[in-house]
Amino acid sequence: MSYQIAVLSGDGIGPEVMAEARKVLCAIESRFGLDINYTEYDVGGIAIDNHGCPLPDATLKGCEAADAILFGSVGGPKWEHLPPNDQPERGALLPLRGHFELFCNLRPAKLHDGLEHMSPLRSDISARGFDVLCVRELTGGIYFGKPKGRQGEGDDEEAFDTMRYSRREISRIARIAFEAARGRKNKVTSVDKANVLACSVLWRQVVEEVAKDFPDVTLEHIYIDNATMQLLRRPDEFDVMLCSNLFGDILSDEIAMLTGSMGLLSSASMNSTGFGLFEPAGGSAPDIAGQGIANPVAQILSAALMLRHSLQQEDAANAIERAVTKALSSGYLTGELLAADKRSEAKSTAQMGDFIAQAV
Amino acid sequence: MSYQIAVLSGDGIGPEVMAEARKVLCAIESRFGLDINYTEYDVGGIAIDNHGCPLPDATLKGCEAADAILFGSVGGPKWEHLPPNDQPERGALLPLRGHFELFCNLRPAKLHDGLEHMSPLRSDISARGFDVLCVRELTGGIYFGKPKGRQGEGDDEEAFDTMRYSRREISRIARIAFEAARGRKNKVTSVDKANVLACSVLWRQVVEEVAKDFPDVTLEHIYIDNATMQLLRRPDEFDVMLCSNLFGDILSDEIAMLTGSMGLLSSASMNSTGFGLFEPAGGSAPDIAGQGIANPVAQILSAALMLRHSLQQEDAANAIERAVTKALSSGYLTGELLAADKRSEAKSTAQMGDFIAQAV
Ligand SMILES: CC(C)[C@H](C(=O)O)[C@@H](O)C(=O)O
Ligand SMILES: CC(C)[C@H](C(=O)O)[C@@H](O)C(=O)O
Repeated sequence: MSYQIAVLSGDGIGPEVMAEARKVLCAIESRFGLDINYTEYDVGGIAIDNHGCPLPDATLKGCEAADAILFGSVGGPKWEHLPPNDQPERGALLPLRGHFELFCNLRPAKLHDGLEHMSPLRSDISARGFDVLCVRELTGGIYFGKPKGRQGEGDDEEAFDTMRYSRREISRIARIAFEAARGRKNKVTSVDKANVLACSVLWRQVVEEVAKDFPDVTLEHIYIDNATMQLLRRPDEFDVMLCSNLFGDILSDEIAMLTGSMGLLSSASMNSTGFGLFEPAGGSAPDIAGQGIANPVAQILSAALMLRHSLQQEDAANAIERAVTKALSSGYLTGELLAADKRSEAKSTAQMGDFIAQAV
Repeated sequence: MSYQIAVLSGDGIGPEVMAEARKVLCAIESRFGLDINYTEYDVGGIAIDNHGCPLPDATLKGCEAADAILFGSVGGPKWEHLPPNDQPERGALLPLRGHFELFCNLRPAKLHDGLEHMSPLRSDISARGFDVLCVRELTGGIYFGKPKGRQGEGDDEEAFDTMRYSRREISRIARIAFEAARGRKNKVTSVDKANVLACSVLWRQVVEEVAKDFPDVTLEHIYIDNATMQLLRRPDEFDVMLCSNLFGDILSDEIAMLTGSMGLLSSASMNSTGFGLFEPAGGSAPDIAGQGIANPVAQILSAALMLRHSLQQEDAANAIERAVTKALSSGYLTGELLAADKRSEAKSTAQMGDFIAQAV
């Protein structure tokens, strides 16, 4: 099988962790007899520097021609003075999501065995572990709803955004959450604010309707404010969390932080054809870029998600995930996951990549 | 001085904790020579049962005639089948906020000395303590913005909500946050999603402008998704958090849960004349209602907030707060704040009220 991948490494630690993901993919190619071809494109800050905008036309064209996008991370202090629309994160990610209609965002987050101490949660809570899949709607809601803008003058000047959801948008993302729950603990928690938002009232209705097709999956509804709370007290009681765009943005970050190991989390953003963008959940971490200490696992795991979801190579995806688990459970870790007195055992970015590539 | 208070005890534990707040206020009356008169009105579920709606006209009229509203809590399983608009919480609180233009919501939350173990945070994080005041805009944004509704049919049926903020609305709540910071650690963290929302871009601008009048206060901006995360890692670095209606709903609940002692938290919702509604942050807790074990402290502290903010009785407010601190620091606690093996020492709702009234 031959595939074409658009590689958008971006800024900060993006390029160096991407190099490790490529190493691992190279090992996968030979083991599974795949032929994966890569083309690199500028995105984010480096694209602003080189081409004057965070998502140049050539990058978008390159992505159109590819089977999937492997994305690094974008942004950094250098571009923070720019107006919001022109900044690397917003100026690259939102147009990519919109252009390819990547409506389905999967953000898995679990507490790895042996890394419970990294969680900011109390030890008796983290000892119970957790494994949550956040299924976030990514092309609707208040992110893209029209009208959005400003009007009026002086003290009366006002800004407005529109949250908007159709039955179609809600049911297609709900189905994905229920399907995903079937491969897990058979539970979907739908997050909304149905006591305030008209969108949430429709959301709840449609989710209830979709649930009828999945009688084997338990459905519960929770308000977003309560969800933020319950995740702190009993994260182990959640399985799949189904969220609108804005609520998913907030909750998936809360859950990511609860693991305490952002460098291990990746995310998949897909459309209905299976085309997708795969990226680490953490940021570009400009403070540690170029030092060879960044954790490449999240980037490597996004390659696994790409293999599974866009290239239909489930076995190859599993092989990467097993290799990562092997590294972590044998204490093969980058510095940020080690206690202060064990930092001398820290592995470099390249060592992590080598180990995982080898284990594949 | 003579005052008129509308007492809206509501459902669940509302009436029993309200009785203790009244006890404490009675002690305050004699000690400070105040004359406080109370009229009780139905609200929430009990109002639905007695009058067919969660906020009867008589209740609203009673509130209009009063100097302040002392609110208990509303809701319970009995009324959960009702459509969202008719449910006790949303059907009582939102109209009260709208009717009296209670735009300013103060939600203080701190980790009490000796109660660090209640926090769901890891012990080294909770050991550092935290003391955050969430200043939430309460009558604007996506809660009240028009248009809000539904249109279309079949799969195209869609729902929509409008987030809307004017300069006037933003600057009046921002001023309150900066004023409050002056009496605290001189730091305001403004929460927004300026990389996505037009409302947040205006919010950030206006907050920057207001900040010019408070050169002694440090201002920082944080995205809502990042705020949810940073609160878990370093809650001690926040002082005043300035939030729009929806973001404040989410963040204030997260912060409340971080204290691990919801029964100690109260909130004030005020308008520009100083009129306000004062209520505990926790819910009506129907599961423990009527057993005499509910913690009345949050309700008692809302009486303190009422004395301070609506009745301008700062000394009386301080007296209550000191009495509460005395109770807590001498280990005088209700059951939910005690470790399982110390539950036998738990004080009842009435004992807590007696102790605090006496200490006043
Ligand atoms: C950069 C920003 C627009 C984006 C979002 O809000 O979706 C980010 O926070 C994310 O979650 O991927
Ligand atoms: C009951 C609900 C409408 C309300 C809100 O969202 O404001 C509640 O969650 C609160 O925070 O007071």
